[in-house]
Amino acid sequence: MGEGAAPAADGAKVTLADVAAAAQVSIPTASKALRGGPDVAAATRSRVESAMADLGYSRPARQRSRAGLIDLVFTQLSPWAIEIIRGAEEPALNSGTRLAVSTAADEGQRERWLDSLSGSRTDGVILVLNELSPHHRARLAGLHVPVVVIDPIGQPAPGVPSIGAANWAGGMTATEHLIELGHRRIGTITGRPELLCSRARLDGYRAALERAAIEVDDSLIVVGDFHFESGLGAASRMLSMPTPPTAIFAASDAQALGVYEAARQHDLQIPQDLSVVGFDDVEIAQWAAPPLTTLRQPLAEMAALATRILLERNADTFNQRAELATNLVVRQSTAPPPPRARGRRQARP
Amino acid sequence: MGEGAAPAADGAKVTLADVAAAAQVSIPTASKALRGGPDVAAATRSRVESAMADLGYSRPARQRSRAGLIDLVFTQLSPWAIEIIRGAEEPALNSGTRLAVSTAADEGQRERWLDSLSGSRTDGVILVLNELSPHHRARLAGLHVPVVVIDPIGQPAPGVPSIGAANWAGGMTATEHLIELGHRRIGTITGRPELLCSRARLDGYRAALERAAIEVDDSLIVVGDFHFESGLGAASRMLSMPTPPTAIFAASDAQALGVYEAARQHDLQIPQDLSVVGFDDVEIAQWAAPPLTTLRQPLAEMAALATRILLERNADTFNQRAELATNLVVRQSTAPPPPRARGRRQARP
Repeated sequence: MGEGAAPAADGAKVTLADVAAAAQVSIPTASKALRGGPDVAAATRSRVESAMADLGYSRPARQRSRAGLIDLVFTQLSPWAIEIIRGAEEPALNSGTRLAVSTAADEGQRERWLDSLSGSRTDGVILVLNELSPHHRARLAGLHVPVVVIDPIGQPAPGVPSIGAANWAGGMTATEHLIELGHRRIGTITGRPELLCSRARLDGYRAALERAAIEVDDSLIVVGDFHFESGLGAASRMLSMPTPPTAIFAASDAQALGVYEAARQHDLQIPQDLSVVGFDDVEIAQWAAPPLTTLRQPLAEMAALATRILLERNADTFNQRAELATNLVVRQSTAPPPPRARGRRQARP
Repeated sequence: MGEGAAPAADGAKVTLADVAAAAQVSIPTASKALRGGPDVAAATRSRVESAMADLGYSRPARQRSRAGLIDLVFTQLSPWAIEIIRGAEEPALNSGTRLAVSTAADEGQRERWLDSLSGSRTDGVILVLNELSPHHRARLAGLHVPVVVIDPIGQPAPGVPSIGAANWAGGMTATEHLIELGHRRIGTITGRPELLCSRARLDGYRAALERAAIEVDDSLIVVGDFHFESGLGAASRMLSMPTPPTAIFAASDAQALGVYEAARQHDLQIPQDLSVVGFDDVEIAQWAAPPLTTLRQPLAEMAALATRILLERNADTFNQRAELATNLVVRQSTAPPPPRARGRRQARP
């Protein structure tokens, strides 16, 4: 079989000329679009890509040599994006590969990112928590680029390897730590509810309470979105209850910092009056006052594994799902509950 | 003049054959090294690059078309690296360009980064606070890639555009804010002393004190390194003095969080007992409890400007130095000093 040629459904070889004809462009233009190059209009490139996908033509260039570049795509840049980049960097740099970092927060940005990707070369894509629409998923598949997903939202696309952390076990460990300290009234602030990882952490929290025969009080479960503000808002509500919780498990470190600020506004000291556990163990957990007890999510290891899968071109053969362990890092934000019910201190006027 | 040919000192055109001969490699190997491609040994590539630089041969490919990639190189990834990436991303994505993010903390990593860079294509390099050795500076220059420096350490290399923030004015504004609140005993924790930006912030602090006729007390100036730990250590020392400061200006937000933790350990409340001002205004400043008053450094704008200079291929003509304004963001970590000298509260045992 000739280079770049693939058997079509009828057994004939698909050539670049077939692709050009189907896309209604000249052969040199089809070739340019195929090699990647910024001087082809996005609409033309998209037409050529569709024709290639329809006809089953695969790009020879991508199979021949490394681009020396791996794409790392975030829904947003946050402190934990730093950990992911750090983790991906070492194996990448060791094999002379650089990391192209992109944020694709909305449909428009994903469209532009796919445009830039199809106009150049990459050895693979690591999607971090990225919610691709079916349309974009198809476009990405049409580029024939290996993809690995870190901590996917829902069921990842069939055939796409995904790497996550043991979220359920982490939620359970966090809650059990608080129970062991003597807490019985434990609140939780969840991550974005549409994410599987959020659901898994919450289920771990419930499981720990049920194992300790503590009734789950739904008023102590507040939906959040991982961000500082949602931690602040949710904790403010819980701390204003007639019987507030003596401990809060937040689904992210940023959210836990929101709980710190809510505690300060309620004139409560951490951990004397309120225990707090976070999730992630990003750098800011160590920088909190007091330093935050949290569930360490091995973000750097997850990113390193994803990078190695792409560098070793194992995306096709890799076990479909890897879950790395989370573990509890005890710092100074957790302690036994205060001896008396709270309310000793007056809230500030 | 033929493509890729440049006049040599004697007026003759330098050809690829000359480069190959000087580097003692075959012409196809020289061509491969020149086009960039990971299948050329680093040592060979380095020899070809040196020969090109010596003979004044310039790569035609880099001048003809865009690579669709800009390199962003950090000494380390920190919360403010996120702001830089965010700022660079918008103009890059708008022109179909992706960002290759690298960390080059030490000589070895810089060597590997230069290896990967010379093996592939880039439209330009943004060095963020990067301390290149003369050897690496020469290697980078030999690649004939446009370079822009953000917040340079020392005098940037001649001909290299650099972008910084108004550090001196920022240090002065931070200190004046504290003076206006009534503070007279104001400590400062500096950044890494070898950086010009650290020196400028410190000089701004001194200038504000002198303008207000407050004597500069050298025991209230503690050398730091921008990191949380240096803020914690320096503030702990100052707060243990017989007459501790009532306010501290830290040269970074991370350092300011170290001051928060020192205050907590000394059982001091912010801002009632101790006022704190940071520098940078990264996301964590808003997440501190209480939210941190800080000098906003326009990191995203600085990065956007650097990116636009490279995208518009203006690195050769750009004004050699741009300084963007810093401005005070007043949040809740600053207040008038406590009415009585501190010591009312007992330090924790």
